[in-house]
Amino acid sequence: MFRLFVYLNILGAFLVTGLHIVEPGPEYPASKGAIWPRPQMQSIEIPYYKFDSDILEIKVVDHDCPILSNAVQRSLAVLREMLRIASPYVNRNAPQQVLDDDTYDGPLKSLSIYLTSPCEEYPHFGMIESYNLTIAADSTLRSSSIWGILRGLESWTHLFHLSDNRDQLHINKGEVHDFPRYAHRGLLVDTSRHYISMSNILLILDAMAMNKMNVFHWHIVDDQSFPYQSERFPDLSRLGAYHETLIYTKENIQTVIDHARNRGIRVIPEFDVPGHTRSWGVAKPDLLTHCYDQDGDYVGLGPMNPIKDSTYTFLQELFHEVQALFPERYIHIGGDEVDLDCWESNPEFQRYIQEHNLTSVADFHALFMRNTIPLLSENSRPIVWQILRASHQLIYSTGWYLDHLNTGGDWTEFFNKDPRDLVNGLSKDINVDNIVGGEACMWAEVVNDMNIMSRVWPRASAVAERLWGHESQATYQVHCRLEEHTCRMNARGIHAQPPSGPGFCLGV
Amino acid sequence: MFRLFVYLNILGAFLVTGLHIVEPGPEYPASKGAIWPRPQMQSIEIPYYKFDSDILEIKVVDHDCPILSNAVQRSLAVLREMLRIASPYVNRNAPQQVLDDDTYDGPLKSLSIYLTSPCEEYPHFGMIESYNLTIAADSTLRSSSIWGILRGLESWTHLFHLSDNRDQLHINKGEVHDFPRYAHRGLLVDTSRHYISMSNILLILDAMAMNKMNVFHWHIVDDQSFPYQSERFPDLSRLGAYHETLIYTKENIQTVIDHARNRGIRVIPEFDVPGHTRSWGVAKPDLLTHCYDQDGDYVGLGPMNPIKDSTYTFLQELFHEVQALFPERYIHIGGDEVDLDCWESNPEFQRYIQEHNLTSVADFHALFMRNTIPLLSENSRPIVWQILRASHQLIYSTGWYLDHLNTGGDWTEFFNKDPRDLVNGLSKDINVDNIVGGEACMWAEVVNDMNIMSRVWPRASAVAERLWGHESQATYQVHCRLEEHTCRMNARGIHAQPPSGPGFCLGV
Repeated sequence: MFRLFVYLNILGAFLVTGLHIVEPGPEYPASKGAIWPRPQMQSIEIPYYKFDSDILEIKVVDHDCPILSNAVQRSLAVLREMLRIASPYVNRNAPQQVLDDDTYDGPLKSLSIYLTSPCEEYPHFGMIESYNLTIAADSTLRSSSIWGILRGLESWTHLFHLSDNRDQLHINKGEVHDFPRYAHRGLLVDTSRHYISMSNILLILDAMAMNKMNVFHWHIVDDQSFPYQSERFPDLSRLGAYHETLIYTKENIQTVIDHARNRGIRVIPEFDVPGHTRSWGVAKPDLLTHCYDQDGDYVGLGPMNPIKDSTYTFLQELFHEVQALFPERYIHIGGDEVDLDCWESNPEFQRYIQEHNLTSVADFHALFMRNTIPLLSENSRPIVWQILRASHQLIYSTGWYLDHLNTGGDWTEFFNKDPRDLVNGLSKDINVDNIVGGEACMWAEVVNDMNIMSRVWPRASAVAERLWGHESQATYQVHCRLEEHTCRMNARGIHAQPPSGPGFCLGV
Repeated sequence: MFRLFVYLNILGAFLVTGLHIVEPGPEYPASKGAIWPRPQMQSIEIPYYKFDSDILEIKVVDHDCPILSNAVQRSLAVLREMLRIASPYVNRNAPQQVLDDDTYDGPLKSLSIYLTSPCEEYPHFGMIESYNLTIAADSTLRSSSIWGILRGLESWTHLFHLSDNRDQLHINKGEVHDFPRYAHRGLLVDTSRHYISMSNILLILDAMAMNKMNVFHWHIVDDQSFPYQSERFPDLSRLGAYHETLIYTKENIQTVIDHARNRGIRVIPEFDVPGHTRSWGVAKPDLLTHCYDQDGDYVGLGPMNPIKDSTYTFLQELFHEVQALFPERYIHIGGDEVDLDCWESNPEFQRYIQEHNLTSVADFHALFMRNTIPLLSENSRPIVWQILRASHQLIYSTGWYLDHLNTGGDWTEFFNKDPRDLVNGLSKDINVDNIVGGEACMWAEVVNDMNIMSRVWPRASAVAERLWGHESQATYQVHCRLEEHTCRMNARGIHAQPPSGPGFCLGV
């Protein structure tokens, strides 16, 4: 009578053995008022205070500057927005929150901010980021650096949580003493494989600040496209970008630097040379090496040409412009994945080897780097991609490639990696004290504006916590904290994906 | 003098061997005016016409109905939107497109739509979806079914492509004779592990229509939450949803059904029983079986209780309501992953086995299904999850689980799977003619509103093309067509992710 339709489905089996109790609701319930990344030292007491925007006064007691006043206004806006978002979900049938119980200590009256040194204009490697925060009716936040004050204000907003009825914001009495484990806590964003819009770059910076990350590593150009608009060489982007409108103008870049600076984030540009430069050659083919196949036929353009003076003349002018635009002392000049076989295939290079008694074609790479690094401005600090070697300071990124995917919650793999353990495993010659930090890397082959936010967040949050200071493994509590933090990012307009399975955020 | 910063980066090597020519620009250039999924038969001629909304007249010559007139209006809106989106990218410096060349055949004057049978109200299994489309100055679209007309109009919009200057829409002379290979081309969306907003569900239906998918399999409830709002049993969602507002009301569901119907998409609800029902038990704990551990201690609730009459009384009332709401004859009642050990652990069930001479605890599953299927309305067609067995009609989903991820372009894996080959591989007893289609399955442990669109699309597009008719492997040309189709989805508000590496879409 009934014709049965059957789904062919090997994965979802018909019968299951082994008692398997499932609870309804989220896989991991969100924590309430937990700071991400976890602070170095924190005490939480039972008494709590209520946020009332008519009562709370934020006092800048010592030094002040626009970075600080902007951050204060953003923090207050975050709290008001938390209440606004929660308003449709207030449980009006439940009994009113009892505010005259023993643990309610009244409204939050003030937050006094003690910045004990003048503001710096730009964040920098080695900047002070430590802060002390005391939550009481009259709270205090102290740091000797504007960057520490920014970190403390971010933590302060994390401590607020909705009351059970969702009609109030509460914060518990307590203290936070906090400082980062690593000085360099970065996120690489590749804007060459796909163009990323300005609005998403600014949102990424917002999210970085929420995760106390402090380096935006802008992998701005690569083989595929050249979206950096040079004033000196406008054809580079006019011809080398995917489209002449898919570019970053000088004004765009200044906007990014300023948005980042206000959040204590450095912007390190990367112009990867001599490889990964094919898009440069659309406008400037003479920069690149002609490659030949085994029959001696020309097959295409390869890495930059290290044996022509004009290459270096050009690079000096470009780097001069770039370094005038970016206030950051550090500049990333790549140096990775150079196609030596192209150099080797070129008869001119073979002649050069003989005439200059080079031992191998790899010497061209050394020659190029030796000639290029002095082109940078005098107090520059160059950064290069390199396999492990010698006693340089190290920034760890292996294992934190966000384009590598697994099913669902691979943030735990990122989280459980420790730069020091891995370095120890690789080479006994490396001094772990040379590791100054690390970066999560969003190579953009697989992301554009459609999915970059959900691909990066909250997966990069795991890296952020690891670099800030948290040394344990991904426990149940870490999962619960990341649930809350993901909903917090969602509430602030960051389209972070679900971290760990079934669950929900209200009002986003 | 310079302190070198070195990135520890095992993946991006310093030197590369093997000549490796990289071209600038997208990995796969987008095709121009290619239909996705690829039609069964198509001829494309060199002469082309220009779209001019002031000139083009769409004539409904034979039968008409609101489904048809709505679809015509949507198609025209799509074309106008293509021009609007392209307008900032028009190349005004390039020479004007020459419209008096040999291949330009003037503006498109008319499209005459011949629907030779009256409209049906709802799409259904086995509906006719074939159509014939002739592109000329006076074009024609013919089908004996409204559903075929919808498929043909969709193809018609795909044929338009921007002129080289991006200031005009062109369409080539030609013909399309098209029909689906499989009758059932579905997408499962799980709204229990995460709640999916109405706006995203409607966008998913839009995208399904763009891919000629015709079954929205709504896995509406599961262990974690019960967002279906029942009129008869309102507590099911009031208590069993993640939040009392994260529900689908009767009006919501009617909106979904109507939106789907207008696009030729069936809506098959799934109420998975007797397992996967933990959230039902928040409001109705008596429905579920008490499970015990080895010491005989109660440990929690398990599958529905198949030996209580009240279970079936309840299901009859619920199914009655559901079937009155959904016009679809088919209803999915799950049947998968039942925790037999819970039934076995319960003393009452052990007594029942003895008293009724059951041979094993698995008999309870048969008992449950035997009692439940007759509760469905008389002309229902039940669907269940099942491992391969017997001579039932089959819907293939293994290997098309969208929650399973690989790096980047795993759509090729989906694309290269053919339901028939796999069934042949599994069992010689299965008649491939019993395979009526397949479904891409978006289990929602790893997706919510933040990332569901980019996770589903364009990966489900690969399944859509496979099910419509395309039998070859994922070639270079398929990649190029999917680039265009992904940009097309982006332009229509679908946040599909990049399919295959570096590239760009303009105006999204």
